This record gives sequence, structure tokens and C-alpha cells, in this order.
Amino acid sequence: MSNKKELLWQSRFSEPFDRDALRFSSSVHVDKALFREDIEGSTAHVTMLAEEGIISVEESGQIIRGLREIGAELEAGDLVPHWEDEDIHTVIENRLKEKIGAAAGKIHSGRSRNDQVATDTRLYLRRQIRTLGTALQGLQKTLVSKAETYRETIIFGYTHLQRAQPISAGHYYLAYFNMFRRDRDRLTDLLKRVNISPLGAAAFAGSTLPLNPARSAELLDFDGVFSNSIDAVSDRDTVIEFISVCSMVMMHLSRFAEDLILWSSYEFGYLEISDAFATGSSLMPQKKNADIAELVRGKTGRVYGSLITMLTIMKGLPLSYNRDMQEDKPPLFDTAETTIESVSIFGKLLEHTALKEERLAKLTADDLSLATEIAEYLVKKQLPFRDAHRVTGRIVSHCLMSGTTLPGITLDVYKTFSELFESDIYAALKPEASIKAKKTHGSCSFDSVAIQLEEAKKLL
Amino acid sequence: MSNKKELLWQSRFSEPFDRDALRFSSSVHVDKALFREDIEGSTAHVTMLAEEGIISVEESGQIIRGLREIGAELEAGDLVPHWEDEDIHTVIENRLKEKIGAAAGKIHSGRSRNDQVATDTRLYLRRQIRTLGTALQGLQKTLVSKAETYRETIIFGYTHLQRAQPISAGHYYLAYFNMFRRDRDRLTDLLKRVNISPLGAAAFAGSTLPLNPARSAELLDFDGVFSNSIDAVSDRDTVIEFISVCSMVMMHLSRFAEDLILWSSYEFGYLEISDAFATGSSLMPQKKNADIAELVRGKTGRVYGSLITMLTIMKGLPLSYNRDMQEDKPPLFDTAETTIESVSIFGKLLEHTALKEERLAKLTADDLSLATEIAEYLVKKQLPFRDAHRVTGRIVSHCLMSGTTLPGITLDVYKTFSELFESDIYAALKPEASIKAKKTHGSCSFDSVAIQLEEAKKLL
Amino acid sequence: MSNKKELLWQSRFSEPFDRDALRFSSSVHVDKALFREDIEGSTAHVTMLAEEGIISVEESGQIIRGLREIGAELEAGDLVPHWEDEDIHTVIENRLKEKIGAAAGKIHSGRSRNDQVATDTRLYLRRQIRTLGTALQGLQKTLVSKAETYRETIIFGYTHLQRAQPISAGHYYLAYFNMFRRDRDRLTDLLKRVNISPLGAAAFAGSTLPLNPARSAELLDFDGVFSNSIDAVSDRDTVIEFISVCSMVMMHLSRFAEDLILWSSYEFGYLEISDAFATGSSLMPQKKNADIAELVRGKTGRVYGSLITMLTIMKGLPLSYNRDMQEDKPPLFDTAETTIESVSIFGKLLEHTALKEERLAKLTADDLSLATEIAEYLVKKQLPFRDAHRVTGRIVSHCLMSGTTLPGITLDVYKTFSELFESDIYAALKPEASIKAKKTHGSCSFDSVAIQLEEAKKLL
Amino acid sequence: MSNKKELLWQSRFSEPFDRDALRFSSSVHVDKALFREDIEGSTAHVTMLAEEGIISVEESGQIIRGLREIGAELEAGDLVPHWEDEDIHTVIENRLKEKIGAAAGKIHSGRSRNDQVATDTRLYLRRQIRTLGTALQGLQKTLVSKAETYRETIIFGYTHLQRAQPISAGHYYLAYFNMFRRDRDRLTDLLKRVNISPLGAAAFAGSTLPLNPARSAELLDFDGVFSNSIDAVSDRDTVIEFISVCSMVMMHLSRFAEDLILWSSYEFGYLEISDAFATGSSLMPQKKNADIAELVRGKTGRVYGSLITMLTIMKGLPLSYNRDMQEDKPPLFDTAETTIESVSIFGKLLEHTALKEERLAKLTADDLSLATEIAEYLVKKQLPFRDAHRVTGRIVSHCLMSGTTLPGITLDVYKTFSELFESDIYAALKPEASIKAKKTHGSCSFDSVAIQLEEAKKLL
Repeated sequence: MSNKKELLWQSRFSEPFDRDALRFSSSVHVDKALFREDIEGSTAHVTMLAEEGIISVEESGQIIRGLREIGAELEAGDLVPHWEDEDIHTVIENRLKEKIGAAAGKIHSGRSRNDQVATDTRLYLRRQIRTLGTALQGLQKTLVSKAETYRETIIFGYTHLQRAQPISAGHYYLAYFNMFRRDRDRLTDLLKRVNISPLGAAAFAGSTLPLNPARSAELLDFDGVFSNSIDAVSDRDTVIEFISVCSMVMMHLSRFAEDLILWSSYEFGYLEISDAFATGSSLMPQKKNADIAELVRGKTGRVYGSLITMLTIMKGLPLSYNRDMQEDKPPLFDTAETTIESVSIFGKLLEHTALKEERLAKLTADDLSLATEIAEYLVKKQLPFRDAHRVTGRIVSHCLMSGTTLPGITLDVYKTFSELFESDIYAALKPEASIKAKKTHGSCSFDSVAIQLEEAKKLL
Repeated sequence: MSNKKELLWQSRFSEPFDRDALRFSSSVHVDKALFREDIEGSTAHVTMLAEEGIISVEESGQIIRGLREIGAELEAGDLVPHWEDEDIHTVIENRLKEKIGAAAGKIHSGRSRNDQVATDTRLYLRRQIRTLGTALQGLQKTLVSKAETYRETIIFGYTHLQRAQPISAGHYYLAYFNMFRRDRDRLTDLLKRVNISPLGAAAFAGSTLPLNPARSAELLDFDGVFSNSIDAVSDRDTVIEFISVCSMVMMHLSRFAEDLILWSSYEFGYLEISDAFATGSSLMPQKKNADIAELVRGKTGRVYGSLITMLTIMKGLPLSYNRDMQEDKPPLFDTAETTIESVSIFGKLLEHTALKEERLAKLTADDLSLATEIAEYLVKKQLPFRDAHRVTGRIVSHCLMSGTTLPGITLDVYKTFSELFESDIYAALKPEASIKAKKTHGSCSFDSVAIQLEEAKKLL
Repeated sequence: MSNKKELLWQSRFSEPFDRDALRFSSSVHVDKALFREDIEGSTAHVTMLAEEGIISVEESGQIIRGLREIGAELEAGDLVPHWEDEDIHTVIENRLKEKIGAAAGKIHSGRSRNDQVATDTRLYLRRQIRTLGTALQGLQKTLVSKAETYRETIIFGYTHLQRAQPISAGHYYLAYFNMFRRDRDRLTDLLKRVNISPLGAAAFAGSTLPLNPARSAELLDFDGVFSNSIDAVSDRDTVIEFISVCSMVMMHLSRFAEDLILWSSYEFGYLEISDAFATGSSLMPQKKNADIAELVRGKTGRVYGSLITMLTIMKGLPLSYNRDMQEDKPPLFDTAETTIESVSIFGKLLEHTALKEERLAKLTADDLSLATEIAEYLVKKQLPFRDAHRVTGRIVSHCLMSGTTLPGITLDVYKTFSELFESDIYAALKPEASIKAKKTHGSCSFDSVAIQLEEAKKLL
Repeated sequence: MSNKKELLWQSRFSEPFDRDALRFSSSVHVDKALFREDIEGSTAHVTMLAEEGIISVEESGQIIRGLREIGAELEAGDLVPHWEDEDIHTVIENRLKEKIGAAAGKIHSGRSRNDQVATDTRLYLRRQIRTLGTALQGLQKTLVSKAETYRETIIFGYTHLQRAQPISAGHYYLAYFNMFRRDRDRLTDLLKRVNISPLGAAAFAGSTLPLNPARSAELLDFDGVFSNSIDAVSDRDTVIEFISVCSMVMMHLSRFAEDLILWSSYEFGYLEISDAFATGSSLMPQKKNADIAELVRGKTGRVYGSLITMLTIMKGLPLSYNRDMQEDKPPLFDTAETTIESVSIFGKLLEHTALKEERLAKLTADDLSLATEIAEYLVKKQLPFRDAHRVTGRIVSHCLMSGTTLPGITLDVYKTFSELFESDIYAALKPEASIKAKKTHGSCSFDSVAIQLEEAKKLL
């Protein structure tokens, strides 16, 4: 298409639009990703127009057939959008005109670019929300499976990246399960707000034609229709909310990635990533890197950035539509793609990891993180907690100085710290005992994890 | 309190904590805002402990009375937290010890600082969510009232800050009503996730004591209890989600502020701010500034910033608790205060504004924004839309060159542009006619606004 | 290229790298933009290697010829990078191997991917900094030209978007000149930090080969060479600083865009955008929108977002290189392109605008913004400033109530407000007089603007 | 002060300013931190006024004495700002009026709140830049001292958090030295832009009084004076640039903090934090946490957030001054305080850390990170690099399977992997040998570190 064709809106302008300006404002390289939604939306609009008698059934049939063909052409790569066409909507309209002639213009009846784009965006969002929801569900399934496999595997729980208390590995995996559960809840809540049709709001004031917005909403499987035509075209809330939810998802993944990178380090050495998901170094033959986890952690920055992009764009914009809002698509598309891919690949990565159970069993058996058990032992023998803590502190210092482990201290030595120690202290100094002693709902005990697993499966 | 007192956790440490380090890590100047929540949470915890027989009824009574007194002291300013006390929880505990002695220590049974702080934060969030919800509702009421008052007042609708089409002013106000409606929906959704008790998760692994987390949740009016103890203490999702929702609220306000600043400019001159809500200049006596709207618009930056603060803090943190998370409180508190105050003052400002109806009536009567009506007139007379647009473009150019208005052109002259013009063109060239001609649901017509108002009132 | 070829780093791995993982981690679709820099860097490296006798002159010749051909192939689109090749460096190396065989491997001697990418990035940054500097200079030239044209055109200066005092339009344009001047200063400062070669740092520890990093730095026109090999490969400061400077540039443009949108609104009506740079509406024939300015304002969000992306990526990354850092390229490339294009198109837009001088002359002639002159007049007649302000306030109120202008008030009426008024008040009530009365350096007077223009031209 | 006093700017207003609006817009609780700068600026202004004969020497003397007293009162806490006074400038002016009567008003001659605040802010920035520069220098000194102490201590260099190659610990510390060096360079560059006086720009248009802005600039030790009065009062570039530089500083600290947290974990165990800078757990007696490092890492989020705050505030603001800009102070003050405190405490923390040299010596002696040495050994014996890498990969696998270390493999076994191995392989398999073999400028060798140290000391 040549720019020499007069653009419709230029009717009263004496000069053609500057080519650099056109190139700068063209969005087709980005919004071509919306072609399916655009065709879907136009088809519903035209169907409604015919049903309401605004256009004829013949015209509607012609248009819908034309759109279907154009969709196939775009899908197949036979129709290649060119930047001079400004946006994907123009690409489709121009092609439709080539195909069916003047009737193509009827597609505009009672519709403006503003409600058209808003509709396309909501259809896109709805699709991405569902895809992301499914991807998160898949990741949750992997987590449940890991939690089942490792329910009785003992690992260290950390605070401040210091070994704190032994816990069930299953409990650890279910912590992430709960984060992604909330993310899915957020998507569900968001979908209610997304699944409202803006079609029929026209430029922002509504139309003089006897449109039936409820009917086009129904044809597009929307749950409802806009309340206010200005709001319908000038709102980008759902785009922002979607990126907010994705930022949370990525934040959760970044934490999981950090754990995974730490655990697969030589120093922790808790986790083996299978060769299919690790990378090596062309220089350093001994290396095995968790690149995928690092990339996911890095991509968190990208999604956060997109959130700021959208919030900045909308800040202080007067009503109703302003061209700034065209800039919503790059951050939206990039966020959807980045988040969905990150969730998917992370799930696959997780499947390709295995805990080093033997090593973990050895490490947890005599670690100082059992010190809490000593303190609790003394409290049960009626020593005030503060004193119990102090006695335990001294025992820990003793271990650090002498290189002994807690189970390695003889009863005689224990008694030098407190007369309350008896031989039953050694039974307490087992990580299994520590874990099994947890009595509360939602705790790290094996039984609690079994219960959590039952509940988790119901949510999948 | 002197730092010379050994801190409990220092039992095995050979040196006292450095004073500069203590000052740097002390959070009491910030978290003292949580004292009510902290006392509320401790009271519930202790009540549960007594019910479960973990502590005696006497101890529980002593502690609860002590806490009540401390609450009153803090409320009255008689107890002033000092930075050396590290945080508000320590302030309260130390004071409790002064009051009731050793029994004060029982407050810690089965509870750690981690689940204690998480509980306080959720109680705080719940309160702020409700306060913000009420503030938004108040603003919506003002909007409904404005929309009723100005339902038949005609203003310009804008796109690209250019006059586009005449609309009902009521329709304009209801656009904002819908934005704040979504904000309230988001708060409602968020509240479900906030109103879950983390109390009983202890440090992160649960407790060996036979706690009853469901009971303490009930005492604190939570709707449910945590599923996973690690997640319960290491999650800050609700803080982030709250700031996300507030960012959206502020974005909406920033747009409204922009409109208000524009409309009260000399050049627009659509809106009068009453003297009680405008400021002048000590240098320029003619000035009347919309400072409150400017400040609200500026404070948007503050809330966006807090969102990035929280997202950055949580990025890449390994499980479970890390001290970085203490930094959640400044952005949370600042956001809650800023957003609630901004919504409230904006509502009050809005009440103190009035549309300049006479001026608006004059301006809209013969504006070029009626050009759309000419195009539609010609389309109704069967001129193809493209041609109608071109003819109208020429008429607009004629007006601009000759300084005429659209209603000011004689029929003879109209006929030089197209033979289709008849004397009924003048009836179309009335903004009321344009507005009334809008037929669609949710449009800018007076009738549509009346329907929208009915629906809006049901939501208040 | 097929993934079945074993990747070098996989020598000790038992499974091939997962294809989804490879696709996720492949960056070639992004970093192909660096191909020129990569070839430039490799050429310098190989030249140095030959000079130092590490490889033979024949090998170096072969490699350099091969690289030159590959550059031409990539430039012409004859060599199309494929995602399976991971990154542009691999694309080039593999092609080199096809061309010259085993000698291609010598390109790696003493160089790792880490210092290679760091070098490419700095070469890219250097080029973009210069291009952006030139674009800013071009914009400044347009500003100087506008300031000269409109030096004696009087416009309103605004505070709080309220007319404050009349000023020279030239003064206004030079305010923006000064902003872009600081932006260029920042680029100059940044260039010092960018123009340091990291080549020779190898993976991060330096090399066992007798490399001459100073020589390769010289060949690449760098001003210096890295001090510390770890820092050389793990630093992304210059990327962040570049995006910071661009954020400032975009912030300045966003303000200018806002002014331009306001001024070209019907209500302000100070500025005409030529048809070649304005857009219309297909629905509303009367509209003429400043889309280019809106898009520039919107793109500000994009650059702010990229800044947050980079800061987030780098937050909390341990030394030295981590794969997260690969994610620096999308925000860097997008920012460079967006900012350079925005500056360029904005300059062109500015050239296509004209002040409506006649209208401005009429509007400024009798505006209430002359009220300051009345107050100053009274002060000169020895009335205390506070009283002068009060008297002027009453006169302004009188004008607003009665619809009079300040020059339209008769002397008799003036005297009812204060006996100090004489007939010379009318001379003071001219915007030219107000402007000319400004005595200070850098003020809005015509003479001051002339001096500023002299200084500005020296900087171009 | 009571709000019943009419505010000067209200002269033409019929209603007093609403109290809620006043409270919302009052900034005195924040900007009181500027009182020293405000008094300093006013003193210079008044001195200049007297020198130029605009006010009398007596008046100037009175005012300056009054200001000095007020400064002392504020310093001592005898004068407590109240929110009803709006801002610190009003507090000082009102108090001055109480002290010296009407002459106090002369302080306003030729000055507006706009240039006054801009001047105060630049004085504040200048002071903070210097304080931060000194703090960074202090941290660099500690780094140099650490690098000297540990120049011959061997640690692992990491990429992807995997042990990569052995390096000098001194080299590691100097990597951070270089980051903070660039930060100081940025501060120096920024100071040039900060140290320009805006005093004399008045509201934005300059003044009709014969002020001498160059003289007041000189009195305040500024290096220059504004070029354009509009720019002088409406620019907040220096605030943004300062927060950008601080964001970079915090990013560097966050990486250092991460390293420190990792190294002081049980699993790494490379670093001992002295008890004075570590915290324990009241629940888990064995714990020793790096809280200070975690807090610094967390506070990074705060500074990033402030950067977004400022960028958002300024986005799209029309010229010249808008009230939004008052919101620059909270992020500025918080950033200056947070960054300076973080740098200072981090330096002190660093002083309180020690490498566990014995453990490091043991760990590095036989680690797989020596694998690179094997590959290089084979390359020196003319094996192509690709083959050398493959052979080494197999040896690494052998170690992992059999639990052997590289130096622990017998020569016979080595020869089964390649005939090229001779007994000199064992000399190569020493980390010292690996480090000493590095030949390049800026590398990790002990000699290179010595040279770097010489250069570093010159910069302090």
C-alpha cells in the first residue's frame, strides 16, 4: 500500500503526513500480534450489525468470509503487514477492500478505532490469562509431585540464609505451591474485570446507530458489557493489573530461582540439575551452571520494568483517549510472553532436578540446627526459656570451638552445661524427631505435609 | 532501656552488638505505628494459649491487663519508644516485663517474631483496606452527586486533548465513578487474601506446642488460617498487592487531577474551584491555582515508587525470612497514608468545584465539534461515509478560514458544499440533538446517564 | 546449524541441552544487532594476537578476511542468524569455521565470551552516545532558531498552568535548550566511563597468555583499559547510566510534548502544527491532533521501565558474571532506539510548528497577568508590598466581576482603589513594558534573550 | 501561628483556605530539614541586596542577625515548626517578623519562593554529595586495606555462583573498589551541574530589581549562575541525577551484601562476621545472621523506588513551576540519608569481617576449579583446545564419580585420559601456580594486585 493514498482523516489537511512521522507512529510491527483478535472482534460486530438490520445479511456474509480468508492469509504469512499501513486494523481493512470492495467500509458502522482496539486487547488478555493460568497449574502439579516424592526427605529450613531448623522437603515445595495458588487466584479475579466488552462505546461517546452491545458481547463470550462509554475506551486498568499479577509471579519465580541456584552450587550441593537443563563453560570444564534459573531471575526485571512503563504512560493523562495509550502494547505483549515462557520453562527445569538425598541425610543428621531441640528439651524439663537459650548457646559455642557435633557430645559433657540433661537427649537430637514433634496445622511435619498434599490436589 | 542489657539472641556471642549497627537496624521509629495491631495480636495469642492450657488463666489475665495498659500508655504518649529498643514488639515486651515480671515471657510461647510481625501487618492491611474502601465510596458518592447535578449540562468530550464531541457532563463524572468502582473491587478481592491468619507458623516451621491457630484466627476475626508455615512468614504478597491497587487508585486520581487543572485554567475556564480549595500567589495577585490537584498528581509518583521498592526488596530473596523484609513497612505505611489522604482530599476538593454552566453552554453551542453531526447528516442522506467526511472537512476549513461557526453558515453556502443540505441541518447542529441522538447503552446521552445513575446508586 | 552438534561446553555432560531450554536461553534474535561491534572487536583482538606473536600473521589475515566477508553477508541479509545458534557470536564463529576451518578457533585465544560481550556492548554504547548527542544538538539548533524567530514574540509564562507573567517566547524555547544542554553534558561525562576497554579480562580472572590489552584498546579507539578483570566483566554500570541519561532526556521531552499538546489545543490555540505533522480523525472531521507529541510523551514510560529493568536485574547479583546479565540487551537496545528516534522526530515536529503571533499579541495585551505590574507600580510609589498586593487583588476581583480588562479601567476607577495611581499606570500595563523592565541576568527580557542566544550558539 | 491570619496570596479570595487542604499541602514536617540552607541562602540574598543598594545596610544587618538567632533556635529545638506554617520558609519568615518587625518583609525583595527553594535544594545537594563522597572514600580505604591484608589469600572466583577459578582475595576486594570509584566520579560530574545558583530567577521570569545574581552565587560558593530563569526554577534534574547515582551505589552495595551473606553462610563458610556486627536468633541458639548486609540489600529497593518517584513526578509537567514538584523532597531526603548511612555502616561491617584463611587454603587446594589448568596444560602440549576441553571434561567426571580430587589422581590414571600427561601436571595443579600464571594487566595474580593497590592508593 502506498502512502500516496489519502488517509481518510486527512480530508481537510493540505499536506500529506510526513513519512518519518508515519514511521514513528506506525504500530503494525507490534500490533500485528492482535490479528486473530481483530478478526474475531470484527466478525462479531458485523454479525450484530446484520442481526439488528444495520447492514444486510449479504454484506455481513461477504465481510465475514473476507475476514476469514484474511485471517488464513496472515496465519500462513501470505499477507505481510507493512509499516506504511500504520496498524494491523488498517492492514485488514485495506485487504478486505481489495477483496470485497466498497462493502468493506460497512465494518466501521458504529465502531471506532478506540472501541475496536479496546476489544482486541481484552480478547488478547483473556487468552493470555488462561494460558498463564494453565502454565501455573502445570508448575503446581510438578510441585505437588516433588512434595510427594520428597515428603520424608529432610532438608534445612533457612532464615537469613542460615540453617535454622530441619524440615520436610515436601513442606518447602508446598510453600511455593501456595504462592502460585495466590497468583492463580489473582488471575481469576482479574478475569472478571477483563471479560467485559467495550464494543459499542465507539470513539468514547457511544453511537447514534441502534447497536446492540450486549449481543456483540455475547457473541464474543464476554460476561458483560461496559457501563460507561468514556471509561470503556480510555481505561487501561486491565493491562496494568495483568502486568502487576505477572510481576508477582516473576517475583515468586525469582525467589525459587535463587534457591535453586544456591542449592545447585558446590557449597550447598543439595540439588542436581540434569544435564539437559544445565550449561557448562567452554573455558572451565568442571562447571555446571543453572543458567535457566538465572535467566528467569533476570527476566523478573523485564516484567517489573513493563509495570513501570504502563503506570508512567497512564499517569496524568486527561480523558478520554490519548495517543500515548498506543504504547501499552509492547509492555503487555512482552510481559505475557516472558511470564508464560518463564513459568513453563521453570516447571520443566524443576522436573529435571533431583535432591541429593544421601548427602542431605548426612548433613542434617548432626547439624547445629538441632540446637533448638536442646533448648526445647530443657524447657520441657522446666528450665525458663531464657536460661535454656543461654545454656544452648554455650553448648553451640563448645561445638564450634571443639569441632564436635551436638549428637557427638557425651552425656557427661552435657551435664556440665546443665544437670537437667539425661540420656533421652539423644533421641531429641534427631532431625526426624524434631520434625515429627511439630504439632501445628500447616507445619513442617510429615503428617502436616500429607494433609497439605491432600488439599493441594483438590485445587488442581 | 540500655543496650547493656544482653539481648536474648546474644547468648553465645562474645561482644555486644555495635551501637551504630543497632541504630541502623532499629525499626521502632517506623513500626511503632503497629502498636495497636501488636497488642491485639498478642491478646488473641495469649487467650488461645490459656484456652489450650498452655499457660494458666491467671497468667493470661495478667498479660492481657498489662497489654491493655500499655496500649493506653502508647495511645496517650506516656510510653515513648526509644530506638535502642529495636522495634515496637520489644518496647511492648519490655514494658510488660516491668509491669508483670517473668510471666511476660509467656507471650512468646509458640510464637516467633516472624509470625507475630506477619500477623500485625495483616491486621494493619485489613484496617487500611477498609478505610480506603470507605474513602473511595465517599468519592464515588460525590461523583454521583455531581453527575446528577450536571446530567443535562453539556461539555466537550476530548480525545488527544482536542474537542471531539459534546457530551453530558454527568457521563464524564460517571467515567471516574467506574474507575473507582474497579478499585474497590480490587480491594475486595485483596481482602480475601489478606484476611488469613499467619499466627501459629512460628519462625517458619510451626511449633511443637499444641497451639490452635484456627482459634487465634477466629479471635482476630480472620476468615481463615495459613496453609503452609514457611509461606506464612516469608510471603509479602499482600503488601505488594495493596500497593499495586493503590498505584491504580493514584493513577486514576492523577488523570482526574489533570482534567481538573486543565479545566480550571484560564484557557479552558470550565470549572471554578472555590476559594477555600485554591491557592494564590504572593507575587502575582491574579492567580488562582489548583494546588491540591497538583499535589495529588505529584503524590502518584510516591506510590509508584513504593511499588518498585517492595518488588525490588522481594526479588531474588531465598526462602524463608530475610531481614530485607523489614524494609516493607516504610513503603506500606507511606502508601496507605498517602492514598487514603489523597482520595479524601480529592473528594472534598471536588465538592468545592462548580462547572461554569453559562460559559459551557455558550462554548458548546457553535463549536466545530459539531462537525461529526454534519457528516452523520450526510450519511443519513445516503452519501457514502468517506464522501461525507470529505465534504465536512471542507466545511470545517471554510469555518477556520472565514471565522464562521457551523450554525452560522447559511443554507446557500451549505449547498455549495453539497446539494444534500436542507434547512433541517440547523436542527442537527445543536449539541443537545447530538447528545440525544446517541442510542447505545452506556452512551453519553442524558437518558443513558440517568440509567447509569440508577445503577451507580445501587453500588453505594 | 543443528543442535545435534555437541556444544563445546557439554564435553562432560551426558545429555544434549533441552531444546526448549535452548530456545529460552537463545539471545540471537536480540544480540544480532551487535554484529558490527562483534566483528570490529574480534578484528582488533586478532590483530593484537598476531602482533604479540600468539598467533601467526597468516592466521590473523585469514581470520580478518573471513570476518570482513561475514560482516558483508550479515549486512546484506545473506547470512540469517538462527535461534539455535544461541547468540550472534556463535553465528559468526560457526560461519568463520565454515570459511577458514580450524584456524577460526584461534579467535578464542585469551578471550572469553564475557570480555567479548562487554567489549561489544561498550562499542555499541559509544556509537549510540554519539548518535544521541548529535540528535540532541540538532534539536538544540532548532530551539535556537525558534528562539531567534520569536525573540520579540510575547507569550504567557505559566506556573501551576495558570497565566503568570508575560515573557519572550525566545526565553521559553531557551529553557528547553538548557535542559538538553545538561543532557549532552551527561553524555559527555558518561562517555569517559564507557570508553574503557574490557578486552583482555577473559572470563574474569585474566589470561595466562601474554596479551596486550592496551594495544587492543588502542586499536578499538578506547581511551583506556580496565583496571580489574573481575569488574571488567561483571559491571553493567555504563548500561544503567546510559538509560538514566536517556530517562532524563525523555522526561524533558515529555514536558515539552505536554506544552506542545496544550498549546495546540483549541483552548490555548497558541501554536499551529503543520498538516504534515498532525493527524485527524476518521470520525470527527474537525480534529487536528498532536499525535507525535503524545507518542513521545508515552514513550517516556518505556525508557523509565527499562531503567527499572536494568536496576532490578543487577540488584543483589553475586560476583562475577551471572547469566541474568544477558537480559541487559533488550532494555539497552530499546532505550537507545526509542530515545534517538524521539529526539529526532521531536526536532522535526518542532520545525513544523508556528506560533500564532497575531492571536498571542491580542491575548497578552490586556490579560490579568499584568496584575504583577500594578503591584510593582504601587511598590515603586512606596506602598508596602503587602498593601500593594491587596489593592491589586481587589482590582483583579473588580475585573473578574465586571468583565473589564486592566487597561480598560479608567483612571478615576483606579483612583478609587488607591490615590497613588496616575496616568502613567497605562504605560506600565503593556506586556512589552513588563518584559523590558526585567533587569536580571538570564531573565525573560528581549535583551537577556539576545545574550542567551549568543551564548547558546557558542555551544553548538 | 493561627491560620486565621490571612495568607498573603489570599488577598482577592473570599474564603479562608480549608484546614484539611492546608494540612494536606503543608510540607513543613519534611522541609524543616532545609532550615540551615534556607538561612544560608537568605543571608547571602540580603547581603547582596544591601551591596546593590536595594535595601539599607541597617536592614540587612537586622535581618542577618535575626536569621542567625532563628538558626540557633531551630538547632536547639527552641523553635518548633508547626504544620499550619505550611513550610520552613514561612516558619522562618514569621519568626523574623516577630523579631524585627516590618523589615523582615525585605527578605522577599526580588526573590520568590521558587528560586528560594531551588537554591536551598542545591545547597542541600552539594552538602550531601560531599558527605556521600567522603563515605565512599572511607569504604574504599577499607577495601584497600582488606586487599592488602588478603593479597596472597586464595579464594574462588565465581561465575553463575559456581566455583570457576582460584583468584587472589585482594583482586576480589579491588573489583568493588573500582565500582565505588566510578560512583565517586559520577558524584564529581554531578557536582558541576549542582553547583550553579538559581538565585535571582525569581518566580521564573527574572526580576525588575537590579539584582546581582553573580554576587549572591559567589557568596554561596556556587561555581556559576543560571543561564535561563525559567529553567532555573522548573528543573529538578539534579535531584533525579543524585538519586540515579545513589541507585547505582546501592546496587553495588546490594551485590557486595549478597556476597557477604553467601560467604558467611554455613555452606560457604569463608567469612567470619565479628559478634559486634552479627545477630542471633531468640529461638535458634546456633544462628549467626548477617542482618546488616541484608538490611543494606533491602534498602536498595527504597532508593530505586525514590528514583521512580521523582521520574514519575516530573513526567509530562508543563513549564514552569507546578506544585507537584514540592513532592521532590521526601524521596531526595530519604535517598541521601539511606545511601550515606548504608555506605557508612557497610564499611564498618566490612572492617568487622575476616576471611577464614585456613579453611580457604584447604578448600582451594584440591578443588575441581583447577580443571582449567589441566586444559591449559594440554593446550601447551599442543593438544587442540577443543580436544583438551573434552579430555578434561572426562577427568572431571571421573573425579565426581570416584570422589577423587584432581591432585589425587595418579599419573597412571592421568595417562589413561591422555598420553600427554607427565609428572609436571602436579605442579600445574596448585592454585598459586594458576594465579601466578596470569600474565595480563588487571588480572587476578598477586603481582597484578600489588600494582592495582599502588594505583588505588593514589586515588584516595
